[in-house]
Amino acid sequence: MGILSFFTKNKTKVGSAQTAKERLQIIVAHEHPGSTVTPAYLPELQNEIIEVVKKYLTISDRDVKCELTDKVDSNMSVLEVNIAMPKS
Amino acid sequence: MGILSFFTKNKTKVGSAQTAKERLQIIVAHEHPGSTVTPAYLPELQNEIIEVVKKYLTISDRDVKCELTDKVDSNMSVLEVNIAMPKS
Repeated sequence: MGILSFFTKNKTKVGSAQTAKERLQIIVAHEHPGSTVTPAYLPELQNEIIEVVKKYLTISDRDVKCELTDKVDSNMSVLEVNIAMPKS
Repeated sequence: MGILSFFTKNKTKVGSAQTAKERLQIIVAHEHPGSTVTPAYLPELQNEIIEVVKKYLTISDRDVKCELTDKVDSNMSVLEVNIAMPKS
């Protein structure tokens, strides 16, 4: 299944009240076959990507939700950043 | 289907020769309901994200493949960055 589950998980949460909301979703998936070690750079990369996004969009930190998950079975580390935005 | 297709598309391409290769995949999906206009910032955001990744990983421009797609039916713009990495 891999990182597909991150999207299906979110899709099921979207109700009619949220339908009109703008949303930015950033997924960073690192496949590292042959190693079970999570890349150490991912949390820092996450912060830098959010800083870059802030140059282009007006977002506050409370609108940003981040999650770092390891899929041990597939040697994949997945960083998920969800940003809810005020309607432009 | 949404952006699920981007992942399934790549999965089907992975053969035995590529199995051991490290891969970084970055997906930026912007849902903008009520507007069919592609966010103008996405191509610039793409370049800045790649510059950030270069701080942490040794990659060359030829290893980076980018694709910007509009899903008109769901008012979603999807930026996909695929980076093949030398085995660490």
